[in-house]
Amino acid sequence: MQQAQAELQASEWLARLQARLAARDAAGAAALFLPDGFWRDMLAFTWTIETLEGAPAIAAMLAARLEPTGAVAFALEPGTAREDAGVLEAWFRFETAQARGRGHLRLKDGLGWTLLTAMQELKGHEEAAGPRRPRGVEHGARRGRRSWLEEKQAHEAALGDSIQPYCLIIGGGQGGLALAARLNRLRVPALVIDKLARPGDTWRSRYRALCLHDPIWANHLPDLPFPDHFPVFLSKDQMGDWLESYASIMGINIWGSTEARSAQYDEAAGEWRVEVLREGRPVTLRPKQLVIATGMSGAPAMPRLPGAEAFLGRQMHSSAYTGGEAFAGKTCVVVGSNNSAHDICADLWEHGARVTMLQRSPTTVVRIESVMRFSSGKLFSEAALAAGITTEQADFMIASRPFRLVERIQKGIYDEIRAHDADFYARLERAGFQLDFGEDETGHSMKYFRRGSGYYIDVGASELVCQGEIALRSGVQVARLLPDGLELNDGSTLKADLIVHATGFEPMESWIARLISPEVAARVGHVWGLGSGTRKDPGPWAGELRNMWKPTAQPGLWLQGGNLQQARFYSRILALQLKARMEGLPTPVFTG
Amino acid sequence: MQQAQAELQASEWLARLQARLAARDAAGAAALFLPDGFWRDMLAFTWTIETLEGAPAIAAMLAARLEPTGAVAFALEPGTAREDAGVLEAWFRFETAQARGRGHLRLKDGLGWTLLTAMQELKGHEEAAGPRRPRGVEHGARRGRRSWLEEKQAHEAALGDSIQPYCLIIGGGQGGLALAARLNRLRVPALVIDKLARPGDTWRSRYRALCLHDPIWANHLPDLPFPDHFPVFLSKDQMGDWLESYASIMGINIWGSTEARSAQYDEAAGEWRVEVLREGRPVTLRPKQLVIATGMSGAPAMPRLPGAEAFLGRQMHSSAYTGGEAFAGKTCVVVGSNNSAHDICADLWEHGARVTMLQRSPTTVVRIESVMRFSSGKLFSEAALAAGITTEQADFMIASRPFRLVERIQKGIYDEIRAHDADFYARLERAGFQLDFGEDETGHSMKYFRRGSGYYIDVGASELVCQGEIALRSGVQVARLLPDGLELNDGSTLKADLIVHATGFEPMESWIARLISPEVAARVGHVWGLGSGTRKDPGPWAGELRNMWKPTAQPGLWLQGGNLQQARFYSRILALQLKARMEGLPTPVFTG
Repeated sequence: MQQAQAELQASEWLARLQARLAARDAAGAAALFLPDGFWRDMLAFTWTIETLEGAPAIAAMLAARLEPTGAVAFALEPGTAREDAGVLEAWFRFETAQARGRGHLRLKDGLGWTLLTAMQELKGHEEAAGPRRPRGVEHGARRGRRSWLEEKQAHEAALGDSIQPYCLIIGGGQGGLALAARLNRLRVPALVIDKLARPGDTWRSRYRALCLHDPIWANHLPDLPFPDHFPVFLSKDQMGDWLESYASIMGINIWGSTEARSAQYDEAAGEWRVEVLREGRPVTLRPKQLVIATGMSGAPAMPRLPGAEAFLGRQMHSSAYTGGEAFAGKTCVVVGSNNSAHDICADLWEHGARVTMLQRSPTTVVRIESVMRFSSGKLFSEAALAAGITTEQADFMIASRPFRLVERIQKGIYDEIRAHDADFYARLERAGFQLDFGEDETGHSMKYFRRGSGYYIDVGASELVCQGEIALRSGVQVARLLPDGLELNDGSTLKADLIVHATGFEPMESWIARLISPEVAARVGHVWGLGSGTRKDPGPWAGELRNMWKPTAQPGLWLQGGNLQQARFYSRILALQLKARMEGLPTPVFTG
Repeated sequence: MQQAQAELQASEWLARLQARLAARDAAGAAALFLPDGFWRDMLAFTWTIETLEGAPAIAAMLAARLEPTGAVAFALEPGTAREDAGVLEAWFRFETAQARGRGHLRLKDGLGWTLLTAMQELKGHEEAAGPRRPRGVEHGARRGRRSWLEEKQAHEAALGDSIQPYCLIIGGGQGGLALAARLNRLRVPALVIDKLARPGDTWRSRYRALCLHDPIWANHLPDLPFPDHFPVFLSKDQMGDWLESYASIMGINIWGSTEARSAQYDEAAGEWRVEVLREGRPVTLRPKQLVIATGMSGAPAMPRLPGAEAFLGRQMHSSAYTGGEAFAGKTCVVVGSNNSAHDICADLWEHGARVTMLQRSPTTVVRIESVMRFSSGKLFSEAALAAGITTEQADFMIASRPFRLVERIQKGIYDEIRAHDADFYARLERAGFQLDFGEDETGHSMKYFRRGSGYYIDVGASELVCQGEIALRSGVQVARLLPDGLELNDGSTLKADLIVHATGFEPMESWIARLISPEVAARVGHVWGLGSGTRKDPGPWAGELRNMWKPTAQPGLWLQGGNLQQARFYSRILALQLKARMEGLPTPVFTG
């Protein structure tokens, strides 16, 4: 199909959709889609993040939402329409009564297969940037005026005391900082608190060998891209320093060494009462909105093992492991076989320890080179940039895919990877490693979305496993600890001077139970996961990550998190929801 | 003229030039220019910054330089050629044997009126950025490897001791930091020292009310643009914080609280011996290259006045003034009428002091709104950005203009400004202010290039002068100080609790005399200025800023400075010269 023809067809389809919406004809609009078509909406129609699956679901959503959404206008982005293998794709901009947004369309046989509508800005409440940037220092002479520094210092002194933040963000990692940066640009007063002293300590305090598993192009934070000499793979400390600079440059209010102790929602006042310890001193904060951005993991999950008190060596959770310096020549057992288990095994080996990995269940392993070659590199690489796929565009390309489609795409990618790396996988299996690629062979990405665990992105440890440099015990569990090691459930024993429990973390909702109450945690329900019905991701199918970046069952409670790509993209979606509430705009949430 | 025709004509002219160069025909190449044409070269042909004025000068340069420069190839940047009022302009890229560069061409009647050739990168020594960025963390396991942090800490511990920087930069303001950032990307080991504690203190330590007089679009540092929500006019403290983040992000080695005491060049070893005091501890550094980046001003020029010891009030140089808090209700005299004098008068007034400005000689005043409207805003503004004039493009547009042309352009701009602001100027003169616009009516920009002083960019104080809120004494000098004030050379007296001497700074070469020796300072000669023969800029005409960003008469000695626009643009030019020398490439300098 010619470009011009593709453009015409996409335009015509959007015009038909626009006409059906204007006529308040939900059924007619839904009839423009394939029976199994998808509409993925981010706020624009639903004021939540929701994928409608199938024409009837689309019709039902529209029936409920056409009235409040008001007039909608679509405009194709010129030159973006293209057809490939029977699927026509195009990008477009759109407006609703309240907002402007960007969208993406896939047509098959002239009918809508997938539609994305993502709100990008609220009319009249745009970011104070570019042509809307503030003037800064006002010229002219005026007695009693304060300098930028004096204003800043006065605000910092009053914040949390005479001035309450509209939004309190617990957690100053990339998720919290990205959101705070977005909120600043939207003039939503926000305060970030973190239990560690300095921004970036979240990364700095992790184990010595940690590096980012995503390449640099995937990791930009909002509105301040990394300079283009930054390396492909950042070490944790360089990332930590970057976050510290980011917090300063973006003017983020952050309290370090501050721990949230409890949070109660006052329904009548519509605000939270959050008790925090700031450098040991109790402070009560009263934000309207509370965002938990402590990462997608809850507290360390440390197994309670019989005999633990009798063990004479050292044991720790992986989150407490900082480096192998002290363990040269020692005998070490790492329980677990996901990312941190592998990284810690390699780090101990590099420091001259004798290391055994104890693999309790099958694990997905994928070489980082193959991830870059067959998967993320198509969106995040110099080659992608050269092809015009900016970071922003890559984010939208990801957003354009409903999760049901992602499953299919990932399956295809893993077919390629498994063919390409057949030797590698054969060697791993010969070493005794129990591989899996997910129950439906969709690999590590779907495991990430479904449960946030169950895989290792190989940055070097697998070779040590293949060579036997890291000893392996697979398909076994720890039965109990002995004074000088562990006994496994097959009756065998292992000596150990050190046991590292790389046994994962409690689910994210455990923070809610601890901070607010078990009742609220139960009402909110499971956080993260798609409801795929696979292991650790119980159904029913949700189609979006549960409770992430969107309204929860608890008014004023929000969850921000995920990897850097998600923190970047969804921080805008979450910030718009907070801004709209602060401005008192109607935000009726579609609840299906 | 049609775009296509313009493009053809520009291409043909460049092809003719290329052919003449290939034929080593200096006279034939020069004959392609107007008799009074200009060729402004930055390194590509001359390994210095030089404007050849007139066809004979161009012929002479080429006769000397065609051989070492080798084959040259020009390629028009498509779509850039345009014709307006008889002048055809176009942008092009070019290559020499050693380097790649960018250039600009103006033709009149088919002949070269102006040509810019600016080296941008050395072949085989490109910046380690974009597709050449480092990989960062190496995957795989290797015993004894160091983390990014460990490498960084080890390097910092060794630097200046077992590891000597190839280049030592004295001064950690924007000039020093911009250059260091460029050198890092070119893998030239550099160390910056500054007498103040933290990067950015250069700005933070200035008077409270200081703000940048150039708008944000003009002030980007290399490779890390300000986020687009930064205000149009930055306060000094926000700029200070930015520089601190910049130094961290760009990985700049900087020693704070470090003062350079002396520097001697060892001709035999081809290196400097620089004695510094680092936090009070003496350290000897041995760089091959020494860059003075202490700003375009030398030490404060504090007048020696009879009676100074008898004065009972406070007196200080403007550089020591931090704010007017202590002077509410006090009687203050500010000697001088340039930028800092005006700013300090307004700040004292804002704090409730009674202020008199003592204007010793006529001064150029220009409203900042008019600068933005008639001058810099055409290159640095949201409107310019919307018209495709990026910061980089604006820099090149400035570079494309030989200074003789800049004089004409500035004269025209000032004609417009003086017509537009006639009322404003009339009111100032009625208040007794002695205005001038430069000896040739070219205004503040030419004063900046010629002498770096003699003007006020009005950000509010002029209105106070017009209204008499700042009292004015014009055309007088201080004769001597009295115990309670000053006596002027017209015999009148002024009471004063505070006297601020906004009397400027010694010329930049005073640093060289102090740090190295008066002999070397004399050999290097005057720094800054064009040799226009106007006040404080003695001839002969140099056509470029003397000694700035280019080889000086002292091997291994360089000067970096100027405003943020210059620091940004010329830091690349200077960095390329340092890189070429480090790599031992031939860098024969054309000396006319």
